[in-house]
Amino acid sequence: MDERTYTADAEPGQTATVAGWVHEIRDLGGIAFLILRDTSGRIQIKLEKDEMDDELVETGLDLSRESVVTVTGDVKEEPRAPTDVEVVPESIEVLSAADTELPLDPTEKVDAELSTRLDNRTLDLRREAGQAVFEIRSEVLRAAREAFRAADATEINTPKIVATGTEGGTELFPITYFGQEAFMNQSPQLFKQLVAGSNVERVFEIGPIFRAEEHNTPRHLNEATSIDFEGAFCDHHDAMDVCEDVVAAAYEAVAENCEAQLEALGIAEEFTVPETPFPRLSYEEAIERINATGELDEQLVWGDDLPTEGERALGDDVGGHYFITDWPAEIKPFYIMDHDDDETLSTGFDMMHPRMELVSGGQREHRREQLIEGFEAQGLDPEAFEYYTKVFKYGMPPHAGWGLGGERLVMTMLDLDNIREAVLFPRDRQRLSP
Amino acid sequence: MDERTYTADAEPGQTATVAGWVHEIRDLGGIAFLILRDTSGRIQIKLEKDEMDDELVETGLDLSRESVVTVTGDVKEEPRAPTDVEVVPESIEVLSAADTELPLDPTEKVDAELSTRLDNRTLDLRREAGQAVFEIRSEVLRAAREAFRAADATEINTPKIVATGTEGGTELFPITYFGQEAFMNQSPQLFKQLVAGSNVERVFEIGPIFRAEEHNTPRHLNEATSIDFEGAFCDHHDAMDVCEDVVAAAYEAVAENCEAQLEALGIAEEFTVPETPFPRLSYEEAIERINATGELDEQLVWGDDLPTEGERALGDDVGGHYFITDWPAEIKPFYIMDHDDDETLSTGFDMMHPRMELVSGGQREHRREQLIEGFEAQGLDPEAFEYYTKVFKYGMPPHAGWGLGGERLVMTMLDLDNIREAVLFPRDRQRLSP
Repeated sequence: MDERTYTADAEPGQTATVAGWVHEIRDLGGIAFLILRDTSGRIQIKLEKDEMDDELVETGLDLSRESVVTVTGDVKEEPRAPTDVEVVPESIEVLSAADTELPLDPTEKVDAELSTRLDNRTLDLRREAGQAVFEIRSEVLRAAREAFRAADATEINTPKIVATGTEGGTELFPITYFGQEAFMNQSPQLFKQLVAGSNVERVFEIGPIFRAEEHNTPRHLNEATSIDFEGAFCDHHDAMDVCEDVVAAAYEAVAENCEAQLEALGIAEEFTVPETPFPRLSYEEAIERINATGELDEQLVWGDDLPTEGERALGDDVGGHYFITDWPAEIKPFYIMDHDDDETLSTGFDMMHPRMELVSGGQREHRREQLIEGFEAQGLDPEAFEYYTKVFKYGMPPHAGWGLGGERLVMTMLDLDNIREAVLFPRDRQRLSP
Repeated sequence: MDERTYTADAEPGQTATVAGWVHEIRDLGGIAFLILRDTSGRIQIKLEKDEMDDELVETGLDLSRESVVTVTGDVKEEPRAPTDVEVVPESIEVLSAADTELPLDPTEKVDAELSTRLDNRTLDLRREAGQAVFEIRSEVLRAAREAFRAADATEINTPKIVATGTEGGTELFPITYFGQEAFMNQSPQLFKQLVAGSNVERVFEIGPIFRAEEHNTPRHLNEATSIDFEGAFCDHHDAMDVCEDVVAAAYEAVAENCEAQLEALGIAEEFTVPETPFPRLSYEEAIERINATGELDEQLVWGDDLPTEGERALGDDVGGHYFITDWPAEIKPFYIMDHDDDETLSTGFDMMHPRMELVSGGQREHRREQLIEGFEAQGLDPEAFEYYTKVFKYGMPPHAGWGLGGERLVMTMLDLDNIREAVLFPRDRQRLSP
């Protein structure tokens, strides 16, 4: 298309063509103002009824909000305009006229329910705050990948259609694959391990995972973005080091490169980059501290999973990101290794934001015999996972890794109420469209 | 784990701990050499039978190939060693003993069939050439994203579980979604358009797509990685500009940062970065040039799709990447816009490598009425796509975009015979595991 100047780049003295959506129309009688909005910001367009071509003025005044136009004209300094400049149009071209009834108001003068926003994501992302969330999300992913590469990890893509899942059938979406039964993958776990056992050694993947869990909560999705790491010759401490680096790098990048977006979300002032290293609390310390808060009706005992209120109480107590390590082996998955010197203790860890769990990881079981026993104890047929277990016969190094919920990272970083605000087109128990 | 030095970083004079796989064992009688391999390269370990601790020598000589060990010792200069250095071990620790029978030989002394390689990807990626392909693939993705960001595009993730598909039911994998019929998405097309119509304006996504096509060829996958772009206020020429920039950036990055990997693949010398801009041939010119090659039994006429042999003949003739533009409207999808001044001509384009099509794109139809007509002409019920078409009532800017096959990009860049070599765990008509 013809050269277009972003509204934020329009400089007084230029003749420029700007393009965007009609954000607002203010008709003051002899003079009228259009506020044109594009991805970079907004600019005022001045219409002077007696001094401009009638047809031009009429075109401008006939516009409905959210119509798409290009405007060519001189850019002038104007201290009374919202951005200190305005365009005096020579021509206005209507590219796409909008209906006068809009299901959602991008000027944010009228609040909208989340479901209305999700049903009308395009309009929702014309709101400054809506746009800001996804620009920040993009920056989070960029920074995470950069941190992974700094940790010598190679980006991989593993299959989303799989023959088997590690967590049993009820949490898997079944799919018909050329007449065969298959599933949508709930985690890249097994595949990233298969690559970590090769000379690629350290890998990361950022991709979709699918969980057929029925619960419909503000922090669960049935399709989510998982940020995964796996590294050969890593133990759980090495894996935690990479984890805190990636999370801190994401915060740093947002603090550095997304100031305008944080402003739009109204959180620029309180936004802080978490300090590394994150505290590493053992499970035992964690339950002691939770019990000491007095927030729970019943005291936790060794072996209990941490209830949501417990996590919250501990989160308030710690006041920032932290790890919980050395879990009871029995409540961590079978493919996580136990401590050499104490089989009741797992090398599994969780990384927590005060509001919720973000990461689950650990050192993996790389000893084939123990792994096969684990499958059996879990009620899974090791034969069905032969493509995976056989690799452990051919020199599998010790390795560790983790998975981080991408949307939870964004949600907690931006203090969003609902995880659905952190994903463009969420999939949940009810929502399959758009 | 304890500090480990990559073999490539082991400097004479150091005492170092290296870790990796036993690549080779050469027992010369009084002296024996182990070649240890890790992600960074290889290093020689010297065992002198009469001068070293018996137990240490025994541990070393008992090792089977592909076993995983850590070796601690002095690093010494040794011009006769493959990398001019060797380690004189003080200790050898066996982390994981490998079976003596391996399904695939990582030293590449024995060639393996592709199916054996894919069944044993972990071992395959211990081959230098196998590892190289995926390190390059990772760099391609990094460079592509950087080029997208330079073109002002925001990274997005769109859903892979969808209620409807644009290309009819036969090419979709059905999925059961909480009792509802759903599909795995074959293209982010509609979703990226929904975001391009917002103030995010320019977007890219690199993610999986799923196509239930039955053909089993060396250049088709049923699950592939699509590299997608969509931009508001872009026409097809703008979209082609971004496309050639992204592809050229990927080649440049590989040329600059992956010299060792190109060497491992034996293509370092002939590797060239394509020059931009790529030639833009109209469909009409394309069929004329194909006909002029005399390679086809029958001459092509206006309206014919280009047969594979025709693409190849033209590819040989052009000798590099090129676009084919201005296709007959009838053979391009309905959501692609036609030329204003000639409705028989589409703004759709393909970007070709001499070996095959890599990209398909065009300016999209943003006029709602024409779009609805298109759905109907295609035999699709516009009502089923209401979540999409309704947006065109609320100010949809002109926009254009494209989708690039990630594996095809890597395959053609590295001159791989089969697209399955460019994906870790391919999914095809037969292959669902690993």
